[in-house]
Amino acid sequence: MTTSPDFEQRVRESFGRQRFMATLGASLVSVAAGKVVIALPAVPSLTQQHGYVHAGAITTIADTACGYAAYSLMPPGYEVLSVEFKTNLLAPASGERLEARARVVKAGRTLSVCQADVSAVAGESETHVATMTATIIGRPSRDASA
Amino acid sequence: MTTSPDFEQRVRESFGRQRFMATLGASLVSVAAGKVVIALPAVPSLTQQHGYVHAGAITTIADTACGYAAYSLMPPGYEVLSVEFKTNLLAPASGERLEARARVVKAGRTLSVCQADVSAVAGESETHVATMTATIIGRPSRDASA
Amino acid sequence: MTTSPDFEQRVRESFGRQRFMATLGASLVSVAAGKVVIALPAVPSLTQQHGYVHAGAITTIADTACGYAAYSLMPPGYEVLSVEFKTNLLAPASGERLEARARVVKAGRTLSVCQADVSAVAGESETHVATMTATIIGRPSRDASA
Amino acid sequence: MTTSPDFEQRVRESFGRQRFMATLGASLVSVAAGKVVIALPAVPSLTQQHGYVHAGAITTIADTACGYAAYSLMPPGYEVLSVEFKTNLLAPASGERLEARARVVKAGRTLSVCQADVSAVAGESETHVATMTATIIGRPSRDASA
Repeated sequence: MTTSPDFEQRVRESFGRQRFMATLGASLVSVAAGKVVIALPAVPSLTQQHGYVHAGAITTIADTACGYAAYSLMPPGYEVLSVEFKTNLLAPASGERLEARARVVKAGRTLSVCQADVSAVAGESETHVATMTATIIGRPSRDASA
Repeated sequence: MTTSPDFEQRVRESFGRQRFMATLGASLVSVAAGKVVIALPAVPSLTQQHGYVHAGAITTIADTACGYAAYSLMPPGYEVLSVEFKTNLLAPASGERLEARARVVKAGRTLSVCQADVSAVAGESETHVATMTATIIGRPSRDASA
Repeated sequence: MTTSPDFEQRVRESFGRQRFMATLGASLVSVAAGKVVIALPAVPSLTQQHGYVHAGAITTIADTACGYAAYSLMPPGYEVLSVEFKTNLLAPASGERLEARARVVKAGRTLSVCQADVSAVAGESETHVATMTATIIGRPSRDASA
Repeated sequence: MTTSPDFEQRVRESFGRQRFMATLGASLVSVAAGKVVIALPAVPSLTQQHGYVHAGAITTIADTACGYAAYSLMPPGYEVLSVEFKTNLLAPASGERLEARARVVKAGRTLSVCQADVSAVAGESETHVATMTATIIGRPSRDASA
């Protein structure tokens, strides 16, 4: 796989087109080659019935971080889609914000495998709340803006 | 496992406390013993970078449907938490709305296994967009409102 | 995807080249388009520390059944590989034999998604012991015998 | 969780009762608190149709390593069972032997989450062939020998 020097810009532009990220209030913390971090404020609008952040919201930022970690290693003109992912929930998620940190475990011509760990951050303390393994497929983009 | 005649009411009350469901616009379509259906409008605020409904939003309603399918078979005074789930994405999700239909595959004293299939509905046509298998843990509730 | 009338023969030939199937004593029960059943005798050589059939042996026949269910729908000259699979164990596996029944949920040009359920059979009774979802990749074979 | 000084002996005794490990030729390489390594020779009797080690054999040693990593942190008198696991296959497995290295990610009162990475070793070179995340349940043993 050959990426290109503009990968961070490509990731940021694509992230900006994800309207669900704006709906959740998620933000891109950092983008490196094969590593992406996304943050989510732990606000009441994202909670489940016990007041913790919903596992679906946790999964959303972990999946997005995995997808862009894979995307950062792909050549310009490619797009990525999630094939599948699995989330294991390790602890209830509360605090000030969540951070999903994803890395590419295996970058392939067609399929990439990524893992993400999500922590809940409150002041100086961090709790590991979830871990994900995801399969991402890359392919030449079907349109100019993908 | 012994459920109780009021399981639908208990599911509806708990669903009503999930603020993330309101944020997404998700609604409870039906509740039967061991079977729950949740709908989600396919609106722009839930989309990813290509304009399809985000895999995280799809996963959220599938996970919630699995959790309440398990919960519907539990005795009063119990609460449920997701242990883990895996989503396979089968097709891009667009149309008017999504429906996640969950069923309990194995109801256990501690752990239940559920499966959900998510379809995108547009008029009379349906597309199977995702399938999930989830593990749900049940336990005596720690508070009166769980 | 277009399969060909000889799919059963192709599945049986490929299964016959899997030396691990012979090591375990697994056999191909039936092959239909998109549906494959594999049996495994529940013998002591396959057990874990409590005397039940090992989850790894259960997974092996479920994965193989999923792979051949996908393969049965592919054109001649293709080969299949497992991308990933997840097994949920539902009950301890004992009895006379196990049967893994796989079906294609989504047949794609590159990726297929299959599900398998594994039952333990003892006389007339059956116990559902595991469920699997698997992603299988198909591609033109690199050699004549694949 | 409180383990006890004899955890290595308990792991080795339980591993010795797994007849499937002997059938495969698997061996326990090392046992530390929360970390277990299992090796498997890459022999023809374990292969799939293309001559690589079968994904089911890879999964078997990864699952067993995960189970004993969790078991090593449990008090005497407990037993462990696999609830579920997911394997992502990263590269074809060949070489001299495979090594599955498992670690506990989250040790809980009831449920533990473990991850394992499997490498194929040939001389000095190693290839990362699979990664697994597993959920393990621990409970007081039902018999004296568990």
